[in-house]
Amino acid sequence: MTVGLQPPRRPGMATLPPLIALLTDFGLHDWYAASMKAVLLNICPRARLVDITHDIPPQDVVAGAITLAASAPWFPPSTIFACVVDPGVGSDRPLLAAQADRAIFIGPDNGLLGLVLERATQRQLVRLTNPRYWLPEISQTFHGRDIIAPVAAHVARGCPLRRLGVPVVRYHTLRLPALHPTATSVRGGVVYVDRFGNLITNLPAALVKPPSHYHLRYQRRRVRLVLSYHQGRPGELIALAGSSGYLELAVPGQSAAERYRGRRGDAVRLYQGA
Amino acid sequence: MTVGLQPPRRPGMATLPPLIALLTDFGLHDWYAASMKAVLLNICPRARLVDITHDIPPQDVVAGAITLAASAPWFPPSTIFACVVDPGVGSDRPLLAAQADRAIFIGPDNGLLGLVLERATQRQLVRLTNPRYWLPEISQTFHGRDIIAPVAAHVARGCPLRRLGVPVVRYHTLRLPALHPTATSVRGGVVYVDRFGNLITNLPAALVKPPSHYHLRYQRRRVRLVLSYHQGRPGELIALAGSSGYLELAVPGQSAAERYRGRRGDAVRLYQGA
Amino acid sequence: MTVGLQPPRRPGMATLPPLIALLTDFGLHDWYAASMKAVLLNICPRARLVDITHDIPPQDVVAGAITLAASAPWFPPSTIFACVVDPGVGSDRPLLAAQADRAIFIGPDNGLLGLVLERATQRQLVRLTNPRYWLPEISQTFHGRDIIAPVAAHVARGCPLRRLGVPVVRYHTLRLPALHPTATSVRGGVVYVDRFGNLITNLPAALVKPPSHYHLRYQRRRVRLVLSYHQGRPGELIALAGSSGYLELAVPGQSAAERYRGRRGDAVRLYQGA
Repeated sequence: MTVGLQPPRRPGMATLPPLIALLTDFGLHDWYAASMKAVLLNICPRARLVDITHDIPPQDVVAGAITLAASAPWFPPSTIFACVVDPGVGSDRPLLAAQADRAIFIGPDNGLLGLVLERATQRQLVRLTNPRYWLPEISQTFHGRDIIAPVAAHVARGCPLRRLGVPVVRYHTLRLPALHPTATSVRGGVVYVDRFGNLITNLPAALVKPPSHYHLRYQRRRVRLVLSYHQGRPGELIALAGSSGYLELAVPGQSAAERYRGRRGDAVRLYQGA
Repeated sequence: MTVGLQPPRRPGMATLPPLIALLTDFGLHDWYAASMKAVLLNICPRARLVDITHDIPPQDVVAGAITLAASAPWFPPSTIFACVVDPGVGSDRPLLAAQADRAIFIGPDNGLLGLVLERATQRQLVRLTNPRYWLPEISQTFHGRDIIAPVAAHVARGCPLRRLGVPVVRYHTLRLPALHPTATSVRGGVVYVDRFGNLITNLPAALVKPPSHYHLRYQRRRVRLVLSYHQGRPGELIALAGSSGYLELAVPGQSAAERYRGRRGDAVRLYQGA
Repeated sequence: MTVGLQPPRRPGMATLPPLIALLTDFGLHDWYAASMKAVLLNICPRARLVDITHDIPPQDVVAGAITLAASAPWFPPSTIFACVVDPGVGSDRPLLAAQADRAIFIGPDNGLLGLVLERATQRQLVRLTNPRYWLPEISQTFHGRDIIAPVAAHVARGCPLRRLGVPVVRYHTLRLPALHPTATSVRGGVVYVDRFGNLITNLPAALVKPPSHYHLRYQRRRVRLVLSYHQGRPGELIALAGSSGYLELAVPGQSAAERYRGRRGDAVRLYQGA
């Protein structure tokens, strides 16, 4: 028996301060992320803040959605996620607050929340229309500070979602490359390149059991499936089940992205046979 | 009616742990920012720490002062700001602690605190001369860890400013480009370039009401004033009221700084007429 | 008398939530560091998290070990350090938890913990072998999230080290360049280059008392020893006692690393005489 991820609730835990996780493309170079944190703490001084990242490439909604989907499941239940990758700021694109299973997600309705919402077994959405929970003055360039942060802080203080605006049902999702199964293979694609230069695909690792019975093809190369980076030879392009549950291409000790000029959108095919 | 930024104090809030915000040019690559946090938590274990940024360009006091002035107003009252952009470390340049309205600022007296102090309606300054509140041993290269962090932590524990050193009245301010009004225009300048490549000027947005009755000139180009990024055409150089209350130049979806080689100090003129 | 770094324990302090400091090479670009934090807070919701850095160059165990050794002594006693620079993830390299004096260090046994363990006056080590304190499913690529974070969180909740695995005595240390004393000089080397381009050596500052009675040789240049950056002339290569207790080479207002193409491993000699 393992102790597991979510220990049984103990009586004292109900009083823990709320947890707000931030994901933005603001970087840490300027004052934008800090201004959001300042507003959060101003309205909900008890809140605990955790950065997922502020280094989503500017306006890259796809990278933001994948990063959110890869990290959110590991957070405690009831975490509030304040998410800003918002190329449409100042337009009339809606902002959403969504309860998805036990977590709350707040951000623009541009696909950023799409993957986490799709995955939830139950969800409840509102479009943010009630300015009572925004800052008194709203800029046209920084809704992260002026709307998303104050709404997240009010939710952290216990404000129910229904007060934030009008219920909606539909939300934008991303058009990620789909899986194309054929008679002999499944075609997927690279959806994310990480800091180590690993090329993360949308091919679920669950497809390959055991890995040694499969191989990939990438850039006309045959790529063997191994269990860990360590099983690759130095310099060898390998594939393995990554930590988020998808197959990834890697070169042990090097950057596969640099070595093979790999990038998002590259095609990858999965074949049976070692 | 909006709920607003600063909710009425509730009884329980008096017991909230003190909030210390950090702004430095140390980067996050080395152990310098972490050593400051370690000392802060060592002396004031209850303190809540929030990073404004550690990515001020090395020794760029102007960027530090602007970043501090843009973020500080959003923090809760009584926040303690520990600020280190300190090219003069090891010289006899003074260090200050200042109460400015309800916030406390601690840092070198080299202009870094100038903008926030100027703006305060009341202020009280001391020069840090009392080593009782410093670390026992003072290096000649890292007063952020050895003096500023321990002083901030002691203030967080309730130490009154007057114990930290001798009262002073004067402090250094920055010589930012001034506004030059002429018969037909106001000349200002770019004072900050942000991560998105937006060129932030020192022209107050309050000068242009309504924006559509004004335009800017920058690099011999006529630049129209719009309400949001979204109103610009793709690739168009536009100007708009930024989130800090100043006019900024932007190219929707691109970096204005890269496209026009824009940098701090560039002249910008504001004219009446659409 | 100074107030000093570690104030006397007050009764209330025993109830402070545990402090977990993170040091990794994950960067902040992806979701890896955030996933560790999420797991930590999931298992130990009361924990306070502090980043040392996530910007150790990928798989650079030496930089990680030096950064840990430079920052750890400033943290409060009983801090738990969760450390991941782990090129061997997925191999059978062991993971360790170590009590070293009053701090706890958790990480791979690849030298990352070597410097802090060497320095401790007493230490107690266990090899992490008890999966009861890991996540239920262990990936082969991300033991930081699946083993190190949950173990750190369980330690933060009070789990004694002996339950985590089997006691061991030996651990890997780094082969840093040794000091070579000769009749006329001591030869050391550059061990770290910081963000400012300062070249930090392994020559203890304690060797040079007073500094004015010594000089260094680096790249066939005679380098004078000064007390602070401020005593160097603009553009002059100087040496001084850095904030971690070792001599470093610097160029005031510039990057010594860029100017002299300095890098880890460069030889530096210390001579008596001004």
